[in-house]
Amino acid sequence: MAQSVPSPDDPLIFPPGTDWIAGGGATSALGWRAAAYAAGLKAGRDDMALLFSDVPATCAALFTSNRVPAAPVQYDRPLAEKGRCRAAVVNVGCANACTGPAGYADTVETGRVAAEAAGVAPDEMLVCSTGTIGRRLAMDRLLAGARALPALLSRDAGAAAARAIMTTDTVPKQAAARFRAGGREYAVGGMCKGSGMICPNLATTLIFVTTDAAVAAPDLKTALREAASRSFNRITVDGDQSTNDTFALFANGAAGGPPLAPGAEGWDAFVQALSAVALSLARQIVRDGEGASKFVTVAVEGAASAADALAACREIANSPLFKAACYGGDPNWGRVISAVGNSGAACEELKTRIWFDDVCVYDRGKIASDADNGRLAGVMRRRAFEVRVDLGMGAFSDAVYTSDLSREYVDINADYTT
Amino acid sequence: MAQSVPSPDDPLIFPPGTDWIAGGGATSALGWRAAAYAAGLKAGRDDMALLFSDVPATCAALFTSNRVPAAPVQYDRPLAEKGRCRAAVVNVGCANACTGPAGYADTVETGRVAAEAAGVAPDEMLVCSTGTIGRRLAMDRLLAGARALPALLSRDAGAAAARAIMTTDTVPKQAAARFRAGGREYAVGGMCKGSGMICPNLATTLIFVTTDAAVAAPDLKTALREAASRSFNRITVDGDQSTNDTFALFANGAAGGPPLAPGAEGWDAFVQALSAVALSLARQIVRDGEGASKFVTVAVEGAASAADALAACREIANSPLFKAACYGGDPNWGRVISAVGNSGAACEELKTRIWFDDVCVYDRGKIASDADNGRLAGVMRRRAFEVRVDLGMGAFSDAVYTSDLSREYVDINADYTT
Repeated sequence: MAQSVPSPDDPLIFPPGTDWIAGGGATSALGWRAAAYAAGLKAGRDDMALLFSDVPATCAALFTSNRVPAAPVQYDRPLAEKGRCRAAVVNVGCANACTGPAGYADTVETGRVAAEAAGVAPDEMLVCSTGTIGRRLAMDRLLAGARALPALLSRDAGAAAARAIMTTDTVPKQAAARFRAGGREYAVGGMCKGSGMICPNLATTLIFVTTDAAVAAPDLKTALREAASRSFNRITVDGDQSTNDTFALFANGAAGGPPLAPGAEGWDAFVQALSAVALSLARQIVRDGEGASKFVTVAVEGAASAADALAACREIANSPLFKAACYGGDPNWGRVISAVGNSGAACEELKTRIWFDDVCVYDRGKIASDADNGRLAGVMRRRAFEVRVDLGMGAFSDAVYTSDLSREYVDINADYTT
Repeated sequence: MAQSVPSPDDPLIFPPGTDWIAGGGATSALGWRAAAYAAGLKAGRDDMALLFSDVPATCAALFTSNRVPAAPVQYDRPLAEKGRCRAAVVNVGCANACTGPAGYADTVETGRVAAEAAGVAPDEMLVCSTGTIGRRLAMDRLLAGARALPALLSRDAGAAAARAIMTTDTVPKQAAARFRAGGREYAVGGMCKGSGMICPNLATTLIFVTTDAAVAAPDLKTALREAASRSFNRITVDGDQSTNDTFALFANGAAGGPPLAPGAEGWDAFVQALSAVALSLARQIVRDGEGASKFVTVAVEGAASAADALAACREIANSPLFKAACYGGDPNWGRVISAVGNSGAACEELKTRIWFDDVCVYDRGKIASDADNGRLAGVMRRRAFEVRVDLGMGAFSDAVYTSDLSREYVDINADYTT
């Protein structure tokens, strides 16, 4: 798994019910262009990207809640609050985190140079970095890249940009969808990177989504929160949240029509398409999780509250014991129910039921009768499966997506910086 | 590491400042005997143990806060509340968790038979199980063991009992210490098991500690909470808390003298010795953590509150990214500071300092100047080292003990039940 670019007809990544744009991404919406560049920050590959709207745009962004945010997060937060960014310059190889005032000055300088080269105001340009914590940026190379990128902008470079922002990712991640409002057709699409340090609280990793609809900045923030809550806030690879997580959403109105706004025509279609794109990108991250060999959907139903449902999902999805069992193909429902019991969610042994896909393994105090048959072994061999828990306590449900814990995860993270 | 029985002069396990009893354990205190028996629950080894006081005793116990407690935990909780248990029968191989009313009845029957065979009242006998969740006990074998154990009781069998209660442990775990009060000499000693599913909130794993001092049951509970808070509540292997965790403390008064009580002579000496024994047992568990190759002390100082200090310790100690880096010998302080930032503890990039043992790697916004020298590589090759974080925010400190995340951890947990 995680070796090839997602197929446009893979229902795990592009679920039915959305009007997907095959091969689409951050430049599927009108007026958006991208560029990729090899600045020499990482050997032998593109390591910088620029995303750019030809016309002014509104923007909204969510950032990591880590109390040690990287310099670019500190820099971008007030810009995003202003709501008029139309571009983002991104580098990999160095997170520019924990680098003090000197590191912050590097980000300011990057933003200034990139904006000047692109012909926009400095406060229209977000600056994003990802990579190793604690190292200073190689500014000569970075600024050369910032100056070179605008000349390379193209509508066809969305995929190249998605590839340029990869770190330990093994495949680029893109999704785009169409929606209609007021007789017009719009597009919303994006790209993201990330496969380790994945446990979102707000946004996670680097995620850029664009649309050619017009949306006022405050409304864009509303839509962004809605989309993030059901996508990037519902995935986990290892329970860690990075210093650099950023989810930026831009709207440039290039498709025409009046601004979309909550309660008005087209708003629901916009939010629905945006949420689908965000969920697809989030699922792509899980599927490309560091060392992942399985895609596991953790679904909890029958919870006494929405908070209980989510807490139980997250506790299961973050349990190293459960994740290692998934890796080994072991249908270890004991670790599932133990995680539920640890989550703080109201639950009772005699009301709980557990399934692996369609095979019931635990039924209210007893091993389920069909748990021994060969179907269970078949489920555990699948690349993607669902563990579903019915708490029998109420009517609330939720789902979280996770990967397994493999030898390869340990290998990757045992020597990332060395 | 984790291959041989701890040496009595290993300062990591038996720190100076306590009057350790070399080779001591749960039968070091007067009037305590133990027995081990091969009931056939696990092939080719002892798999049941009995701990027994020749005279009536008081007891107190802490149990898992998991909401799906195993049958023995449900059974023991009210017994421990009565405070007059003098014995415990233990089996491995089966946790008797999530087995419903039938499983609970099995525990009741085990306790009845074990008490009858040992010649005590049923409410004087705790019943403890550990092993796989969801399976029923092999009652014929278990009851045969319960009947056979009392005849095997001996003061010399402490080590054999400690060995009999091992599951994925690679070494038995014992500690005992002497203390003096009112001109008399007392002993406090114990045994425990556990190497996976280690992340205590109350008690964790199975832990049995005895003393020959007299202590009223409510006071014993006070001492137990104090000892647990600084030992078993400060270790983590994988962030999971089991369905069966139990920490039982017994006092039989066989050494004579008046009951020890808070505020009276000898109380502090008792609590100090008890805490030292509990801490030693807890450290032995970390050192024997599943797949562990490193013993890592995570120390946080300069925190704005006690809660902040502990939260930061725990977030670092539970980070799979940090633990995998420890396994790889990578001094990845970026993952340390990122975990601190995620912990919710008040912290600032420009006030934080980080050391690996005596080597400062991060100093308030900058990579420390001595981080590059060869000493750091030397620290990372050590079997045991400390990562120390000074938050520079206040005067509170704490420490948590953890192990690394290795390929072996994944291997062990990928096929535990199969």
